[in-house]
Amino acid sequence: MAREVAVADLVDRARDRQPRAVARLISLVEDASPRLREVAAALAPFTGRAQVIGLTGAPGVGKSTTTSALVSAYRAQGKRVGVLAVDPSSPFSGGALLGDRVRMQEHATDPGVFIRSMATRGHLGGMAWATPQALRVLDAAGFDVVLVETVGVGQSEVDVVALADSTLVLLAPGMGDGIQAAKAGILEIADVFLVNKADRDGADTTVRELKYMISLGRREIRGPRWRQPIVKTVAAREEGIIDVVDAISAHRDWLVEHGELEHRRALRARTEIEAIAVEAVRARLGHLHGGDTLDRLAKAVMAGELDPYTAADTLIAGVGRD
Amino acid sequence: MAREVAVADLVDRARDRQPRAVARLISLVEDASPRLREVAAALAPFTGRAQVIGLTGAPGVGKSTTTSALVSAYRAQGKRVGVLAVDPSSPFSGGALLGDRVRMQEHATDPGVFIRSMATRGHLGGMAWATPQALRVLDAAGFDVVLVETVGVGQSEVDVVALADSTLVLLAPGMGDGIQAAKAGILEIADVFLVNKADRDGADTTVRELKYMISLGRREIRGPRWRQPIVKTVAAREEGIIDVVDAISAHRDWLVEHGELEHRRALRARTEIEAIAVEAVRARLGHLHGGDTLDRLAKAVMAGELDPYTAADTLIAGVGRD
Repeated sequence: MAREVAVADLVDRARDRQPRAVARLISLVEDASPRLREVAAALAPFTGRAQVIGLTGAPGVGKSTTTSALVSAYRAQGKRVGVLAVDPSSPFSGGALLGDRVRMQEHATDPGVFIRSMATRGHLGGMAWATPQALRVLDAAGFDVVLVETVGVGQSEVDVVALADSTLVLLAPGMGDGIQAAKAGILEIADVFLVNKADRDGADTTVRELKYMISLGRREIRGPRWRQPIVKTVAAREEGIIDVVDAISAHRDWLVEHGELEHRRALRARTEIEAIAVEAVRARLGHLHGGDTLDRLAKAVMAGELDPYTAADTLIAGVGRD
Repeated sequence: MAREVAVADLVDRARDRQPRAVARLISLVEDASPRLREVAAALAPFTGRAQVIGLTGAPGVGKSTTTSALVSAYRAQGKRVGVLAVDPSSPFSGGALLGDRVRMQEHATDPGVFIRSMATRGHLGGMAWATPQALRVLDAAGFDVVLVETVGVGQSEVDVVALADSTLVLLAPGMGDGIQAAKAGILEIADVFLVNKADRDGADTTVRELKYMISLGRREIRGPRWRQPIVKTVAAREEGIIDVVDAISAHRDWLVEHGELEHRRALRARTEIEAIAVEAVRARLGHLHGGDTLDRLAKAVMAGELDPYTAADTLIAGVGRD
């Protein structure tokens, strides 16, 4: 009973713009605390308002610097800004290794800004699971804009796209050729491209290569489509950042006009529910009969007596009975 | 009936060292073909022999070059070698974008070597799902050593560790400082460290920093533990590769001596079964009643009428009834 009061109180205080309450709520959802469900239920009525902007790119392109510059730009518009810096490679969270977050510190004393590092390595279900819940906290706490920043490799990138209304993909000159760009799969996921460090040699080449790659991809797509703009920035000097904000704004207008914002958010909700359900089932599979069933099946597979698909069937049948 | 004959025939031919049959079987498992289960069952009796070596590191450290050099070294020992080059960022597979695989081509005409690129982006369950199946094909086809290479970021890295008997982590001078190393979580996962491009400035600094990081980590660990060796290599000139092979061999001896090989392989089988079971459940969740249930729940979550945990409960209850 005391706990229920505490969660409702935390949500009240978070909505009253108290950063400690926000931080506490994120910890509760991130650590999969027993109060997680209670928190989720308490937040639900207040969600769905924040504009969510994803930001991704290879290591070294200047993601943190750009995020920090965007925070300044949105603050200048009077908006409250939340930042979730998702690190898929780190098992540490909440500030343990913030070496590259140093630039964010200029915002540390601004009550209109809330910054949180999230580690997803080793987390069951990774980012797909924990980040949407933290996003819900910031959304319910009344942040107008939430920037979700993650390194652009593999699943984390796919996950950030699933979360965001608009996704920014950062490149920098000399970070790799066209093949690298295609490999990273960035063409499909970007709503706005940033060529950061545009004062360096090769920036125009990067823009040209990117345009060429985009033109190749476009041929395969039918019907009306958002034309991904390419914005040159020097985030460390805040150059080009207003153009980025304008591009994001134009993209959001386009989404609304084409009914895509609703579509993306429905997809986000589906993905979120599914991720939670899958993790719940996974937990059940792993702990079935104290893990004995799975151990026994694993031994049979190791011995070549059973193939893993038949083993999985047996495991699932166990969940149904349990 | 014709299909059953064909799969058995393919497995026979793969075991008879016919590369086309190996490639065909991998395609069947990778594409989640309807014959997947049949293939898995046919392979099961022949698996469990191959030595599996994982190889991971940041982009640009020389993973492909090192893999290629290791292939040469194992070939010189008369071993048959399979390579699975797993690209977690690409939706393309089987050779579409092999820009960085060029060095592998020296092995392309060697019948004792089989190389396959695997894309896992967008794959349900990603690498955790598809790669173990491809590994089973190579194992059953009698490859003595299978090298699984993947970029060292996020979940792909965790997955490669789950697969491998021994995991090599590559670093290169000037690719990042100690914080980067810690962030990548490489300290826990490496069985052998390679400092590649060791002819470059800063190689000794990288080795020194790594040793320091390892010494910090070691304090927290009780009981006997494998001492992770650091090997300096110049893979492009095949320098140091014999030392790597020796280190892998020593690690394998250590694993056997301490009962850890059995332990790691049991964990691999568990992980594999669980991943298949979870994906099967996920597919069921998504397609439940033609997806209507999930859509309806997603709408309620978007509207703030329901929290995603309660929605997930409803979804899971649906699976049980179906």
